[in-house]
Amino acid sequence: MRLLPLVLALALALAAASSAAASASGPRSVLRTVTDVPAAVSSGEDADALFCDSWRLSVETSNAGPWRAIPARCAAFVRDYMEGPRYASDSAVAAADSLAFASGALAAAGAGAARPAWVFDVDETLLSNAPYYAVNGWGSQEFNETSFDEWVDAAKAPALPSSLKLYNELQGLGFYVILLTGRTEFQRNSTEANLLFAGYQSWEKLILRQPSDIGKTAVKYKSERRAATEAEGFKILGNSGDQWSDLIGSPMATRSFKLPNPMYFIS
Amino acid sequence: MRLLPLVLALALALAAASSAAASASGPRSVLRTVTDVPAAVSSGEDADALFCDSWRLSVETSNAGPWRAIPARCAAFVRDYMEGPRYASDSAVAAADSLAFASGALAAAGAGAARPAWVFDVDETLLSNAPYYAVNGWGSQEFNETSFDEWVDAAKAPALPSSLKLYNELQGLGFYVILLTGRTEFQRNSTEANLLFAGYQSWEKLILRQPSDIGKTAVKYKSERRAATEAEGFKILGNSGDQWSDLIGSPMATRSFKLPNPMYFIS
Repeated sequence: MRLLPLVLALALALAAASSAAASASGPRSVLRTVTDVPAAVSSGEDADALFCDSWRLSVETSNAGPWRAIPARCAAFVRDYMEGPRYASDSAVAAADSLAFASGALAAAGAGAARPAWVFDVDETLLSNAPYYAVNGWGSQEFNETSFDEWVDAAKAPALPSSLKLYNELQGLGFYVILLTGRTEFQRNSTEANLLFAGYQSWEKLILRQPSDIGKTAVKYKSERRAATEAEGFKILGNSGDQWSDLIGSPMATRSFKLPNPMYFIS
Repeated sequence: MRLLPLVLALALALAAASSAAASASGPRSVLRTVTDVPAAVSSGEDADALFCDSWRLSVETSNAGPWRAIPARCAAFVRDYMEGPRYASDSAVAAADSLAFASGALAAAGAGAARPAWVFDVDETLLSNAPYYAVNGWGSQEFNETSFDEWVDAAKAPALPSSLKLYNELQGLGFYVILLTGRTEFQRNSTEANLLFAGYQSWEKLILRQPSDIGKTAVKYKSERRAATEAEGFKILGNSGDQWSDLIGSPMATRSFKLPNPMYFIS
């Protein structure tokens, strides 16, 4: 009971960011209350930064559910996140998590079993469309299919560096790499050219939407193709994607890895 | 093709946080490269903040998988996160996401169907153990079951304010609230006393671990109880928990909401 007298002496208050909270009457408030928060936080710019960081977390955990547009107050936040070191850092840690899992998973799967596979999405996973979004509002402008398709046809998207490193490491471990993208079959040539341009040298399969897949949600289309891939004798141990719709649905990979993307949502 | 000349004129590089990257030869680098990052970021404290924020995201997205301890370099980061406005803000946005889903879900479920239910975990979901962790290193010290059980017996944990607000709103909408906790049946009296102390006035059921549940993972135990709950005529539309093990497994809620918790992991 040593710790309790101190604890119980405190008037405890967890302050919701935008709501009032009890004031701390003890010598030290355990959690900051609204009155403790520096005035700057309640001013516009810092309040936006606080909210937008929480909004981003809600997107990345899929708490947000389907969404159509970045909140207007978060446009500058998303730009700063993507242009600054945080996007690169978040991507690098996701890749490190993936690699930490991969070698153990391969050992656990054992020899003679199904061929061990890793599924990668393409856009914002292997390839970065940051150069496109940099001149199109970092996701704050309405999606323009015509200009995005021109960007895809140009086949000049760079690799997300941490993904390229992971990709090579997984191939080195013996994984079969399956690319599963929402891009259409009509974009196969430009997608292959772009992957090679970005440094991805080989893959087991590149799966694109066929005409019969048009109109399916990504969850349905991608789940069907994971099922078909496993039916062909692969065991999908890992799956990397920037959308939850890359990752959920049956069958799921043994472990799924959510790459950051605060710019857009695909159901 | 209007945007492409500018884009293609740039030497593009996405810089992994800790690895070298190509330098920007164009007039404006789309994504910050390592050489653009202020020197401060590569110094200890800021590098830790950048890494620890990415580590926290990897925990919240479950990319990190099972983990036993906060990285040593992130102890101060977790303390600052919990004591500052970010934890409260992240919790509040998760609650707002939950409420945004809830009213529509109830309408979609329709009248005459199974009783609409919302499942809540207890610790770090309805109740905050922040006062305990504040004097126990915010999760950076090894878990001490004896002292934590004393804290539970004292029944003085405050409500997480945004959860209490959500709880009342959901009950107002007509949800049956099911509490599903990893606490044991021996802790029923103190748990009920604490919930009432914190402001939670009523619930449909409070489910605790029975002796036969000891040794089961949280995923197994909680999935079994969700299945039993649905067999009793409830339809679990929403589920709120600070651990993925509160949320995953079959049956799952229609929508699950991950509350933040960078202090500990339960499988």
